[in-house]
Amino acid sequence: MRELLQRYKTGDLDLGEIVSSLRMMPYQDLGFAKVDHHRPLRTGFPEVVFGKGKTPLQVKGIVASLLGNGHPVLVTKTNLETFDLVAKETPDAEFHPAAQMITISGPIHQEVKGILLVTAGTADLPVAEEARITAELMGGRVAQINDIGIAGLHRLIDVLPDLRKAKVIILVAGMEAALAGAVAGLVSVPVIAVPTSVGYGSSFEGLAALLGMLNSCAPGISVVNIDNGFGAGYLAVQMLRTLG
Amino acid sequence: MRELLQRYKTGDLDLGEIVSSLRMMPYQDLGFAKVDHHRPLRTGFPEVVFGKGKTPLQVKGIVASLLGNGHPVLVTKTNLETFDLVAKETPDAEFHPAAQMITISGPIHQEVKGILLVTAGTADLPVAEEARITAELMGGRVAQINDIGIAGLHRLIDVLPDLRKAKVIILVAGMEAALAGAVAGLVSVPVIAVPTSVGYGSSFEGLAALLGMLNSCAPGISVVNIDNGFGAGYLAVQMLRTLG
Amino acid sequence: MRELLQRYKTGDLDLGEIVSSLRMMPYQDLGFAKVDHHRPLRTGFPEVVFGKGKTPLQVKGIVASLLGNGHPVLVTKTNLETFDLVAKETPDAEFHPAAQMITISGPIHQEVKGILLVTAGTADLPVAEEARITAELMGGRVAQINDIGIAGLHRLIDVLPDLRKAKVIILVAGMEAALAGAVAGLVSVPVIAVPTSVGYGSSFEGLAALLGMLNSCAPGISVVNIDNGFGAGYLAVQMLRTLG
Amino acid sequence: MRELLQRYKTGDLDLGEIVSSLRMMPYQDLGFAKVDHHRPLRTGFPEVVFGKGKTPLQVKGIVASLLGNGHPVLVTKTNLETFDLVAKETPDAEFHPAAQMITISGPIHQEVKGILLVTAGTADLPVAEEARITAELMGGRVAQINDIGIAGLHRLIDVLPDLRKAKVIILVAGMEAALAGAVAGLVSVPVIAVPTSVGYGSSFEGLAALLGMLNSCAPGISVVNIDNGFGAGYLAVQMLRTLG
Amino acid sequence: MRELLQRYKTGDLDLGEIVSSLRMMPYQDLGFAKVDHHRPLRTGFPEVVFGKGKTPLQVKGIVASLLGNGHPVLVTKTNLETFDLVAKETPDAEFHPAAQMITISGPIHQEVKGILLVTAGTADLPVAEEARITAELMGGRVAQINDIGIAGLHRLIDVLPDLRKAKVIILVAGMEAALAGAVAGLVSVPVIAVPTSVGYGSSFEGLAALLGMLNSCAPGISVVNIDNGFGAGYLAVQMLRTLG
Amino acid sequence: MRELLQRYKTGDLDLGEIVSSLRMMPYQDLGFAKVDHHRPLRTGFPEVVFGKGKTPLQVKGIVASLLGNGHPVLVTKTNLETFDLVAKETPDAEFHPAAQMITISGPIHQEVKGILLVTAGTADLPVAEEARITAELMGGRVAQINDIGIAGLHRLIDVLPDLRKAKVIILVAGMEAALAGAVAGLVSVPVIAVPTSVGYGSSFEGLAALLGMLNSCAPGISVVNIDNGFGAGYLAVQMLRTLG
Amino acid sequence: MRELLQRYKTGDLDLGEIVSSLRMMPYQDLGFAKVDHHRPLRTGFPEVVFGKGKTPLQVKGIVASLLGNGHPVLVTKTNLETFDLVAKETPDAEFHPAAQMITISGPIHQEVKGILLVTAGTADLPVAEEARITAELMGGRVAQINDIGIAGLHRLIDVLPDLRKAKVIILVAGMEAALAGAVAGLVSVPVIAVPTSVGYGSSFEGLAALLGMLNSCAPGISVVNIDNGFGAGYLAVQMLRTLG
Amino acid sequence: MRELLQRYKTGDLDLGEIVSSLRMMPYQDLGFAKVDHHRPLRTGFPEVVFGKGKTPLQVKGIVASLLGNGHPVLVTKTNLETFDLVAKETPDAEFHPAAQMITISGPIHQEVKGILLVTAGTADLPVAEEARITAELMGGRVAQINDIGIAGLHRLIDVLPDLRKAKVIILVAGMEAALAGAVAGLVSVPVIAVPTSVGYGSSFEGLAALLGMLNSCAPGISVVNIDNGFGAGYLAVQMLRTLG
Repeated sequence: MRELLQRYKTGDLDLGEIVSSLRMMPYQDLGFAKVDHHRPLRTGFPEVVFGKGKTPLQVKGIVASLLGNGHPVLVTKTNLETFDLVAKETPDAEFHPAAQMITISGPIHQEVKGILLVTAGTADLPVAEEARITAELMGGRVAQINDIGIAGLHRLIDVLPDLRKAKVIILVAGMEAALAGAVAGLVSVPVIAVPTSVGYGSSFEGLAALLGMLNSCAPGISVVNIDNGFGAGYLAVQMLRTLG
Repeated sequence: MRELLQRYKTGDLDLGEIVSSLRMMPYQDLGFAKVDHHRPLRTGFPEVVFGKGKTPLQVKGIVASLLGNGHPVLVTKTNLETFDLVAKETPDAEFHPAAQMITISGPIHQEVKGILLVTAGTADLPVAEEARITAELMGGRVAQINDIGIAGLHRLIDVLPDLRKAKVIILVAGMEAALAGAVAGLVSVPVIAVPTSVGYGSSFEGLAALLGMLNSCAPGISVVNIDNGFGAGYLAVQMLRTLG
Repeated sequence: MRELLQRYKTGDLDLGEIVSSLRMMPYQDLGFAKVDHHRPLRTGFPEVVFGKGKTPLQVKGIVASLLGNGHPVLVTKTNLETFDLVAKETPDAEFHPAAQMITISGPIHQEVKGILLVTAGTADLPVAEEARITAELMGGRVAQINDIGIAGLHRLIDVLPDLRKAKVIILVAGMEAALAGAVAGLVSVPVIAVPTSVGYGSSFEGLAALLGMLNSCAPGISVVNIDNGFGAGYLAVQMLRTLG
Repeated sequence: MRELLQRYKTGDLDLGEIVSSLRMMPYQDLGFAKVDHHRPLRTGFPEVVFGKGKTPLQVKGIVASLLGNGHPVLVTKTNLETFDLVAKETPDAEFHPAAQMITISGPIHQEVKGILLVTAGTADLPVAEEARITAELMGGRVAQINDIGIAGLHRLIDVLPDLRKAKVIILVAGMEAALAGAVAGLVSVPVIAVPTSVGYGSSFEGLAALLGMLNSCAPGISVVNIDNGFGAGYLAVQMLRTLG
Repeated sequence: MRELLQRYKTGDLDLGEIVSSLRMMPYQDLGFAKVDHHRPLRTGFPEVVFGKGKTPLQVKGIVASLLGNGHPVLVTKTNLETFDLVAKETPDAEFHPAAQMITISGPIHQEVKGILLVTAGTADLPVAEEARITAELMGGRVAQINDIGIAGLHRLIDVLPDLRKAKVIILVAGMEAALAGAVAGLVSVPVIAVPTSVGYGSSFEGLAALLGMLNSCAPGISVVNIDNGFGAGYLAVQMLRTLG
Repeated sequence: MRELLQRYKTGDLDLGEIVSSLRMMPYQDLGFAKVDHHRPLRTGFPEVVFGKGKTPLQVKGIVASLLGNGHPVLVTKTNLETFDLVAKETPDAEFHPAAQMITISGPIHQEVKGILLVTAGTADLPVAEEARITAELMGGRVAQINDIGIAGLHRLIDVLPDLRKAKVIILVAGMEAALAGAVAGLVSVPVIAVPTSVGYGSSFEGLAALLGMLNSCAPGISVVNIDNGFGAGYLAVQMLRTLG
Repeated sequence: MRELLQRYKTGDLDLGEIVSSLRMMPYQDLGFAKVDHHRPLRTGFPEVVFGKGKTPLQVKGIVASLLGNGHPVLVTKTNLETFDLVAKETPDAEFHPAAQMITISGPIHQEVKGILLVTAGTADLPVAEEARITAELMGGRVAQINDIGIAGLHRLIDVLPDLRKAKVIILVAGMEAALAGAVAGLVSVPVIAVPTSVGYGSSFEGLAALLGMLNSCAPGISVVNIDNGFGAGYLAVQMLRTLG
Repeated sequence: MRELLQRYKTGDLDLGEIVSSLRMMPYQDLGFAKVDHHRPLRTGFPEVVFGKGKTPLQVKGIVASLLGNGHPVLVTKTNLETFDLVAKETPDAEFHPAAQMITISGPIHQEVKGILLVTAGTADLPVAEEARITAELMGGRVAQINDIGIAGLHRLIDVLPDLRKAKVIILVAGMEAALAGAVAGLVSVPVIAVPTSVGYGSSFEGLAALLGMLNSCAPGISVVNIDNGFGAGYLAVQMLRTLG
């Protein structure tokens, strides 16, 4: 990398060329994982650690590698046991029990505004929390309105002015997820819909909500995986950063 | 049956007993079908002919048997070819091409009012038609409001007064069927939800709409089979007749 | 609201107008939830708390808000831990261990009669319990007949007179749920069918029962979500109240 | 084979040995098919030709091979075009349009009695026909009762004496297939249940009927594939032959 | 019942009539359950208690009711806790830990022979155990061959003579359940196939085995629910008793 | 509306108020449809006509209503027969046979740039076409790169510079849809993923592609319904318009 | 490319380097498709054209591009109409009606032996044909044994010597696909299993066969997509070429 | 067996005959299991013990039987409790906690080289471990590259030389499993794809990965069951042994 920068200094490479080269730079190989330190340049944010299925030791190793490169850290779908191990060496790590996430903040290059996070019901809050924490760590400013599910339309109409002020809406809903179509029909901004596994019986762990959102008769909606608050928060910041 | 009536006349049976006996009375055996002529006493309406999978000749035979007993006739999920055969002998038979039904009206014992039939979109009309024709043949008066799907909430709010005047609402919707929960949250009357196979891709022939309606977060909804307009029309009249 | 009433007194608003206004009145915002205190006017019953996925503290907050407005309280799919927290401040709260519900009774405006609750087997009792408690809290009088599944038809025939006396039947059945069609073919009143997750193997957690009820060849049936005793009890009272 | 019989004659092999050897005897190889001429000895009935997916020419070749060995012929899930080709060379071939089968009768070694074939509705007749034709070709005597579906229980009760006279019951039903459990609870003989694809919407081409029958709360039922009338007819004769 | 017997004594009823009347006799109503004491006359065996979803107290009550009428007792899908409660009052109750059953033997009216129980693998034993215990309690004599799955065909061929001696075969297999078709192609007796939930990944809790058995290209097979050893054992005895 | 404008003129309403009022304005009721003429103000684009399940006459009526209000027209999932009827009265209507759409262009208020449309294979072109036509009608400028599926990674790497120039990427892929994750890992802009029903066997009409895209391990992706090119094109323009 | 070869000649690149460079060489861009002419170097065989969903004109264009580079041509899942267009310009194109393929042979660099193609039944032949044609075009020598499904085990045992002579076995089976496990348990060579959509009812278009093969209790099997004869033929040749 | 060898010595049997006889030799019958000691001759490796669903005592018995015949031992999907029992009598047994396997090494007849084991992410390691241990016990030499999932293509490109050196690739991936197609498009050797249950929401326990791999647009891939590392390791060695 030093060499690249040298060549840049001497004019051998122009700015475009050096950025482009950096984008193809390698990663740190921990054996069980290859930590992708140059993802920020490529996609705008460091690698995020998917915690499920990783041992606490593995998470700790990856976190150390990220921190060693000055990146902020985000571990999703993790647990307290993993946090305890991580926190021993990194006292400023934070655990978010509802969202089951570990975060270690880093410097934010660019702050973006205009994300509105909406939940259909109180039980959707943990997934919304995952979205909010993700977006905030990436520099997003997030307003949040809870519990405006379709069963009480007046609550939805009441917040119409707030919906219309948003630049991107993250909509978190379980059960039949009807809120997605109702909101998308009222606004002119993109709606990122997050189906949740909230429900029982024929909700089939979020399948009903997922299908409901995918089949919405209102355009302007796109959908992420069931309970994928992280993906929605990430995408919202990315939209604002690259399009704003 | 004559004997039963005789015994009733002589006081050997009281009214309750004779009705109860009639309820267990037999049917006409056509070989390929047993036409249940006493269903009106038992459930309030003659046997309805499910046309799918029956040959035109079989339908014709069953229709003749029903007519011979003075019943109105309703054939569902049938086709023009079957109608042509039936109509040869029964000129007052009517065919409903959108709903794919044959009807022959009979005397209506009791007229009931207050059914509101609501569709989410224009493509749901054939199923709604099946519901309306069924209800009307059974003596139901049906008001209808079309195309108030959730993507344009102001259309829904606009018809609120009509929704609130209804005694029973039949709600026909495909795709994600979000309208069901929105309406049920606004009214205090039963909503009979009919999912339709309208949609494409992950609507999976009405599965998305079915799951959406079953998982509605608003109470007061119950659901019939996908595209089962008949069942909804029947149930609406039955509710009004027995509870009204 | 005072203002509204004032204007009503002065004749500025007539009765219809004031009721209509009240129906659009707001709710109490607890941050994590918007408690909908005017639902009784709109749909005939206060908001019911879906307990699954809510923390005990959240349930407690919503319950306090409902009580503060004089509403009866119904928490479904909850647990003993939540009840213990709620009961500390509300000693007349009751816990129903089989149905996993918390109730706090309130004044009942209107009592309705004629609900018959039927179970196919003993294992369906917890779901039936949920239906009965819901209906009773809403002012419904409920008769109950247990264990008349299709494998012993004489038990079903034996209770025929009871079935025919009912005005609405709630039918709770798991496994293949064949009882729904058998009962609907014998009565002239609406049957609200509740599939349960009772069964094993290819019952797929209630899917077999759900499909069985949706495909019943007898009309007069409508279906709610798997294990949704609450929805059935609610709907039964609503039918009787608005149609009776 | 001559050699085997010779050795049997000379006492070199006893009866058990010769039968056992014959059971492992080869087949005729047509290239595209290996016709299993010794299946009768092994399983009690010649190879049956599954017509679907075979060209008319292939069916014709297999039929010729079977006839050349003196076997009766049964082709299932076939069509008129195939029959026309087969019938050119085998004038006593019969086509059954409802069941979509070709049959050529052969000598029946053993006649068995006591099969009762029951259908829930008229639309189930083609599948029942497949069962009846199969059983009759194998030497089974079949009584048949149609259209006694659960929606009219009195029709079922009316035929109770017939049900109780049967030694094996083949029960053919679509939609929710509730009849299977009702019948099995009334009789002490095996019930072979055949789900059919009769229905629409959430019947999902027979899945609802299949799951219904598999989850029946009455024991004494076993199930074959959706629309597999052949399998049921075959099994009924086999039961009577080997157990009778 | 006394009256019925009296009338039989005086010749007012003949034997057929009295048996027929007894078959429609009532049951014992425990409130939470209706114990069907006359099922033996109707279907040949007393009511069997499905333990899953019943409280230990409920099971104890039903068991007491059955014992009070002199019936043998069979509780399926139950557990040790329930057994401990039952055993307090009924010391000769037996618990079968692998099969998770409680049994209390009764007099056997008729012993039947010729059941062969076959498992594909060792992990299928608990389900096979359920089948064996059921059949034996009902008077069936059961031979058993374990672990002859298709992956080692020589083991299957080795037991061919045993397979051919059986009158009915119960075949218990998980994973892809290929053994069912292989065995049915070798014998001339009915094969009752029991899919098990043994497997992982895309076995989807027994779905692969169920579909495999239903689609077997060899006729002579019928299928019961996943892990339904009880149903298979019951059916095997029933076949032998009524057809033998 | 005149009144509203009057009040605006007099200063009784400010600009915000009048826009807000217009957003709640009504629609044209054709009986079978309510054409939502004010959707442009609310969501930025006129109502789009979903053609599937509508009769040609219905489509024609809705088109006439839209045109009468000066809106551009977009009919999706339609056919030539419908077009022929529409074109009789509207000669400048265009039919797009691959995409099965009808369009009638209107004035574009705002042109947006930076949409890149990417297909994995040639068979995905009709869905991509639907996306392109939609976006262009709404004022979007669309670049397109075809056939860069994952099986030939060098084709993907070759277009990296183009991918990185885009502001929004619409990615259309069937089969396993692996391209979505590969692209999202290389860029810092939002990827709108459109699963297609291209494939066979276990693609299950696009289910494999849908699940693949939803489960992508690269963030920055959101998904629309299977074959929903329209939704992707619409969303892309909306993003650029409201965020750009 | 010329340059690369020049540098190779001068010794500037060694053989490994030039091959490696060639492997990253580009493709021909037809607009609607990017024909990957260097796939042979990378994966050992030219690009194969998946015909489904491509217009005849598109197929013709791709074929011309492949031929122009001297590659053999293979179009799968195509039809006669497409062939007719292709054949106009390429008279030596061949159409295979059962397999629905177009082929144009090219020079074969390396011939490999030892592929055995096995089918369970005659209806599996079209898929087997697809495998055979693919393998032969790639230089594979294929022996074929048909119709040895599990229902007649003696047919399987009879061909054991042939099975054991093979180096790779392609096994094509529909319905429950039990043959896969039986064969894999008898041989020590890899078995490539191809599930087919042959069957009906609960075969669910090949799902039963697919699950059966994936869950086989015999190791040594791997599975390709339903009806993917092409994939199996390709893989068999590839195995022999790279491992032989 | 001694007899067989004797006859071989005397020339009564030639080598082919004795091997062929040995291949059909019996097994050790433990009652609950038939241990197949001659599988090595037939398929090249001793019977492997599927641990799930077997009691520790059963596993111990089978292990003892295998050891008594000098076979190496492999128990899959087992647990520590079982290991503890096994290890008491067999101190050189090893437990692999991540892979949940027990192994006891034996002499390896033939060592094979060229297996490359690739994982998409760190959470896939346990399944990869199962593959590696299996392959190594069978004599395979395994190289391993971890965490090269599609979200960071440069990591994949970086290991291209390693991919191209392999003779067989085992590719382990969860979520959408896009890596399979990307790798197969870059190499000319067989890719054995192992879908894992890593993921959440609509990964449906590995279904998304399974479908993704089955539908890969790149040929040269075949798939084993979800989480079936064992099957992949086994197949890789088998390929190299029989084809190398």
